[in-house]
Amino acid sequence: MKNILIIGCGLLGSSLVKSIKRRKIAKKIFIFEKSKKNISKIKKLNLPGKVVKSLKDGVINADLIILCTPMSEYKNIILQMNDYISPNCLITDIGSSKIESSKIIKRFLKKGISWVSSHPIAGSEVSGPENGKTNMFVGRWCILIKGKDTKKINLNILKKFWKKNGSKIVVMTSEKHDKIFSITSHLPHLIAYNLVKSAQEFEKKQSYDLIKFSAGGLRDFSRIAASNEIMWRDIFFNNKNNISMAINLFIKNLKGFKKDINSKNNKSILKKLIQTKKVRSKIIKLKQDINKPDFGRN
Amino acid sequence: MKNILIIGCGLLGSSLVKSIKRRKIAKKIFIFEKSKKNISKIKKLNLPGKVVKSLKDGVINADLIILCTPMSEYKNIILQMNDYISPNCLITDIGSSKIESSKIIKRFLKKGISWVSSHPIAGSEVSGPENGKTNMFVGRWCILIKGKDTKKINLNILKKFWKKNGSKIVVMTSEKHDKIFSITSHLPHLIAYNLVKSAQEFEKKQSYDLIKFSAGGLRDFSRIAASNEIMWRDIFFNNKNNISMAINLFIKNLKGFKKDINSKNNKSILKKLIQTKKVRSKIIKLKQDINKPDFGRN
Repeated sequence: MKNILIIGCGLLGSSLVKSIKRRKIAKKIFIFEKSKKNISKIKKLNLPGKVVKSLKDGVINADLIILCTPMSEYKNIILQMNDYISPNCLITDIGSSKIESSKIIKRFLKKGISWVSSHPIAGSEVSGPENGKTNMFVGRWCILIKGKDTKKINLNILKKFWKKNGSKIVVMTSEKHDKIFSITSHLPHLIAYNLVKSAQEFEKKQSYDLIKFSAGGLRDFSRIAASNEIMWRDIFFNNKNNISMAINLFIKNLKGFKKDINSKNNKSILKKLIQTKKVRSKIIKLKQDINKPDFGRN
Repeated sequence: MKNILIIGCGLLGSSLVKSIKRRKIAKKIFIFEKSKKNISKIKKLNLPGKVVKSLKDGVINADLIILCTPMSEYKNIILQMNDYISPNCLITDIGSSKIESSKIIKRFLKKGISWVSSHPIAGSEVSGPENGKTNMFVGRWCILIKGKDTKKINLNILKKFWKKNGSKIVVMTSEKHDKIFSITSHLPHLIAYNLVKSAQEFEKKQSYDLIKFSAGGLRDFSRIAASNEIMWRDIFFNNKNNISMAINLFIKNLKGFKKDINSKNNKSILKKLIQTKKVRSKIIKLKQDINKPDFGRN
């Protein structure tokens, strides 16, 4: 590949820049970033990409464009890109929900331009180019979205691209993607935010200084609840139907637990607590987490 | 102190044995453990304590007895100890909820015997003596419970004991304790179990293989949901009133989030997502968690 343009150089954008450079995936890397604060960080960090002054300068030269911005910016970026983009260029994005953004793309992207969506399952609670990591995508899943109109050749270009970055590939529809991630990612984040919010409310009401006792469980959730708020607002809004259903399922089960607890239903609660334990072993076996007690904190 | 008896030598019991030995807190450490499997592990591990064959053998010699069993065993142990225990011996326990167990103690423990309850905020998702750690309590809070009848001299003995194990001490009533930990520990564990359960149900219903995509959030919860089921059943049952209230607060807030998402209420959701972020910084500042993105997994 000759030229890659990264639009949005935060945690994942900067990780891509580093990974592409290290693995010699492109001849040239261009970066378009609208935040002045981030641009000055990128320069200080000496990230191995050329920061372009305008989106146009990046787009006209690109063979592959990767959107790494919050999803709420896609529409604007598409409308700007339409004027300069060549039909030989392939576009992808790394957004965490797919149905809504594919509607935006279908509606606003110039006809004849190809966009195949990606979702690398990578990231963390910190943001910004200063936190980017060369090996961010190594060993991680990358979901590629296949719709009715997806050309095999484009899918193959992206497969190759993400494999070079160290990812394992799986292809699915946006519908399946959004269902799966509503449960494995979107609901957990919402629950974490909600738990921390509930703790804050409780602390205020009781005037107990309780955050200092968070090592008993709350701290694990607080990590996830520290994730970027714009990104997560976009995900929650874009996948609202699936998330709504996931919330309903969650509340139904929580009420079941409450009933077991209030009636001290030993058999029912033990069955649940034992069953959920098995998932951890499965996650470790699938190498989706490290096998160190307490995340190896101590 | 001369002799300490540890009753129940799982994760925390074995950690205490190691810590007491390393820090020379007692002349002799006795261990009473009813599980044959654990006894053979203790011997293989060469834990620095003498395993006694009967509870009697341990109790008659002890200056300090520490119950490290699930709370549902307290009553039985108390009834057995009553026959041998001397008024000079101090009893404590490390249970995670306090109101209910103090009722059991009050009702069944022989008059004239002192029991001051402890709760070291330590542990992890793994169980058993093979996972015990010498520094399990270092830098961690240990809550001591002060009731109407608590003698200052006994409180001081325990303060000294836990400080020697490296803990920081805070004294409070069982009512305050159970309220605080219903939010910082019991609810988070229940939520984690419930999230994993919901994911399992969803996976079964949809026949999607979704656990392999758990790195996007679910895996953090699965760690906590792998904790010992007997211990957690006891905690949930013993603190059911506070936990019930915590569940109600949690569901109320979750419904608020759902409303924001369904109506795409930008202002309301951003306010919430930004506020919860602050808790993470507070937790890190209070040294209740490590300051490494992603728990330093990579």
